[in-house]
Amino acid sequence: MEFCKVEKNEIGKNALLLVLYGNDQKVISLLNDRLKTYNYKIAIGKVGSMEVQKVVSAIETAAKKNGIISEKFYREEHALYHAIIDALHGITRGQVELRSVQRTVGLRFSILRGYPYANQDEGEWIAVALYGTIGAPVKGLEHEAIGLGINHL
Amino acid sequence: MEFCKVEKNEIGKNALLLVLYGNDQKVISLLNDRLKTYNYKIAIGKVGSMEVQKVVSAIETAAKKNGIISEKFYREEHALYHAIIDALHGITRGQVELRSVQRTVGLRFSILRGYPYANQDEGEWIAVALYGTIGAPVKGLEHEAIGLGINHL
Amino acid sequence: MEFCKVEKNEIGKNALLLVLYGNDQKVISLLNDRLKTYNYKIAIGKVGSMEVQKVVSAIETAAKKNGIISEKFYREEHALYHAIIDALHGITRGQVELRSVQRTVGLRFSILRGYPYANQDEGEWIAVALYGTIGAPVKGLEHEAIGLGINHL
Amino acid sequence: MEFCKVEKNEIGKNALLLVLYGNDQKVISLLNDRLKTYNYKIAIGKVGSMEVQKVVSAIETAAKKNGIISEKFYREEHALYHAIIDALHGITRGQVELRSVQRTVGLRFSILRGYPYANQDEGEWIAVALYGTIGAPVKGLEHEAIGLGINHL
Amino acid sequence: MEFCKVEKNEIGKNALLLVLYGNDQKVISLLNDRLKTYNYKIAIGKVGSMEVQKVVSAIETAAKKNGIISEKFYREEHALYHAIIDALHGITRGQVELRSVQRTVGLRFSILRGYPYANQDEGEWIAVALYGTIGAPVKGLEHEAIGLGINHL
Amino acid sequence: MEFCKVEKNEIGKNALLLVLYGNDQKVISLLNDRLKTYNYKIAIGKVGSMEVQKVVSAIETAAKKNGIISEKFYREEHALYHAIIDALHGITRGQVELRSVQRTVGLRFSILRGYPYANQDEGEWIAVALYGTIGAPVKGLEHEAIGLGINHL
Ligand SMILES: [Mg+2]
Ligand SMILES: [Mg+2]
Ligand SMILES: [Mg+2]
Ligand SMILES: [Mg+2]
Ligand SMILES: [Mg+2]
Ligand SMILES: [Mg+2]
Repeated sequence: MEFCKVEKNEIGKNALLLVLYGNDQKVISLLNDRLKTYNYKIAIGKVGSMEVQKVVSAIETAAKKNGIISEKFYREEHALYHAIIDALHGITRGQVELRSVQRTVGLRFSILRGYPYANQDEGEWIAVALYGTIGAPVKGLEHEAIGLGINHL
Repeated sequence: MEFCKVEKNEIGKNALLLVLYGNDQKVISLLNDRLKTYNYKIAIGKVGSMEVQKVVSAIETAAKKNGIISEKFYREEHALYHAIIDALHGITRGQVELRSVQRTVGLRFSILRGYPYANQDEGEWIAVALYGTIGAPVKGLEHEAIGLGINHL
Repeated sequence: MEFCKVEKNEIGKNALLLVLYGNDQKVISLLNDRLKTYNYKIAIGKVGSMEVQKVVSAIETAAKKNGIISEKFYREEHALYHAIIDALHGITRGQVELRSVQRTVGLRFSILRGYPYANQDEGEWIAVALYGTIGAPVKGLEHEAIGLGINHL
Repeated sequence: MEFCKVEKNEIGKNALLLVLYGNDQKVISLLNDRLKTYNYKIAIGKVGSMEVQKVVSAIETAAKKNGIISEKFYREEHALYHAIIDALHGITRGQVELRSVQRTVGLRFSILRGYPYANQDEGEWIAVALYGTIGAPVKGLEHEAIGLGINHL
Repeated sequence: MEFCKVEKNEIGKNALLLVLYGNDQKVISLLNDRLKTYNYKIAIGKVGSMEVQKVVSAIETAAKKNGIISEKFYREEHALYHAIIDALHGITRGQVELRSVQRTVGLRFSILRGYPYANQDEGEWIAVALYGTIGAPVKGLEHEAIGLGINHL
Repeated sequence: MEFCKVEKNEIGKNALLLVLYGNDQKVISLLNDRLKTYNYKIAIGKVGSMEVQKVVSAIETAAKKNGIISEKFYREEHALYHAIIDALHGITRGQVELRSVQRTVGLRFSILRGYPYANQDEGEWIAVALYGTIGAPVKGLEHEAIGLGINHL
């Protein structure tokens, strides 16, 4: 596990590795084990769409299903929502739009929730990482894109 | 090396690993070896600033010093410039500004140049990856951020 | 009426009070009386939607119905349109989008037209104020937002 | 006080009234009294500048001086920072820039911290309201602008 | 032809004249003749829509039909796509949106491909010019707009 | 003059030709003659800078010196300012920034004021056209850019 050493305080890097290695079940399993020792709650998933709102929904649904955020409190929804939009800026680079500017994405996403700062009083934070491809709505006419949003919870 | 397997066609992911593992010389050395077998030209560096233009300059200078782009042709400068700005969107998430909105960055960057697509006729592409922290101009008042820009050359 | 004193030249503040006190008919009535002594033309209304264009349409329709702008001249439509878009920037804070980024608004709006500047030669101006909530398309998962657009007519 | 009735849950409207009535000490005093019964922490101030970062700094400084946020925790700084930037979108409507696009602002600001939601488990939130003028760097060549940013804390 | 003299290296100006004189077949014919002596590949067309993606599609389709870009290579699609989006910024001035902000366009477009720089090693570039009207979805409630995107190929 | 026929109602196209043919005194002279028969007030000029505000200032100064707008009324300043910012969107395509994103412009500008619409009751409008180059702060590392802003006066 030494090769891929990432500290607990790097919540963003941990989230990013989950999406970058998302196609390798063995690595994901190792990363999951480590993240649990860090007491991070984890959700991962995939979404492909020309609709930004479907990307948002897929991440929100995964977060709720996996108990990352509670459906009972708006504050958790609010923290996650802004982290998602922040991450989408890295993917879309200018206008947070897909279909309306004739492009599509195929993305892996990860969501981490936990205490990244050494000082526990900094409380809980949430990280949303996105990685995949963006391009014309034709297979292969695309390049990679990344995004990361981090918010206090 | 098996743990961290990344295909040649994933020029963005390769560039991202260089910045994510940038503090681990052993891993960087392994990644460099692999990237050379992929015939990628590589430059890495660090930059910390409240000025966006210093981030742009640091990357452009590193690209030229390491022979990633030629100073003789505008087209290479142009390709790199737009890749940098794209990457900065992921870091800044909204306004490509630092000092004017009272924040600073500490970033590692990597630049890769090569033939990512299986079809060689797709020609050369360039990837710029950025990873580090963004926040108030006070040590520790910051969180992570990532950015990736990819352009044809 | 003393409590809520607002000068004629503050067309924006006058428009804002109409939306902020919009649920109190007694106050609205008092504000209306004062605004008439200021020779302001007034329209108020409500709109809830996930579509930005429905917000734009609702305001444009109210402006025409209440004789705030004439349908015969594009210049009045043009002045109002840009005031609306300006006001929407305060509501949306980044991307002037609702459904495509999975959010909805419930807004009161007001439109004022008149001569706010002491110098009558400054001519007529229009103010559009918006106030309400923005959030997830689920009742209660929302917070307040405000917007104001001002344009010469 | 009846005229200006605003419920506790409308943290944004409460913050907005503080800036809209900022030039009337008697009203401000009444508003302050009510806000204390709502257990809101309050800071108000003024800032005029062609530099966005000076606006940000003025608000952050006032928030710390008045004990609205703690200087010990980044999470509070983070919550406030994003609320400020959100509020600035309403003021700047497009590009969060002043000097670089040849304009200046004269603003009152207010910061409120407390529990706006009926459900106490929604925790603390922060609201930043801005109101004043924006325009050319010449006295009188300006119109009003408003902004509001709300964040969970 | 002297009146309308434009040098080969001004690929953007050449593209702009094609859209500005688009309603005058005689001039277009003269411009075409000159552009051929410059070895520029040319496509022109018209598109009216409330959908940004239809504008993008119309230009992409014309580029392919007229052999400006090859459908076999993503790099050419990529170069054209970003030139189109750049041009749309001039038309939309803020948000690259039409229907969602209740407006429509009627545009002529031109696409030029060739070697604008004196140094042939600068290689091929592509220019996309757009000119027409933007405004409310009502005939006549509109004003002119222009856009130009230039990219290396 | 037949070659370059442009109708009076195309205020934007008229402004654009002034900047596109700005280096040809003979053509400019012909265009000026025609624009005077259209009763357009005209100002042209040049500005090169890495500061957006210098571009804004140069245009505002030229407008006042040439009597295009009156310095006595804010409404005229306001109309011109927003036309300038609109035009700059076409030049900058995303962020209305130059130095802070490490780029510079060399531009010709034109300002027209008059009655473009057949219906005189549509009143006066103003058009600002910009044309030139944008790129790295090194001579030759640049490509063309265009911008047009139109506003009612
Ligand atoms: Mg929010
Ligand atoms: Mg460029
Ligand atoms: Mg307009
Ligand atoms: Mg943040
Ligand atoms: Mg691209
Ligand atoms: Mg204005």
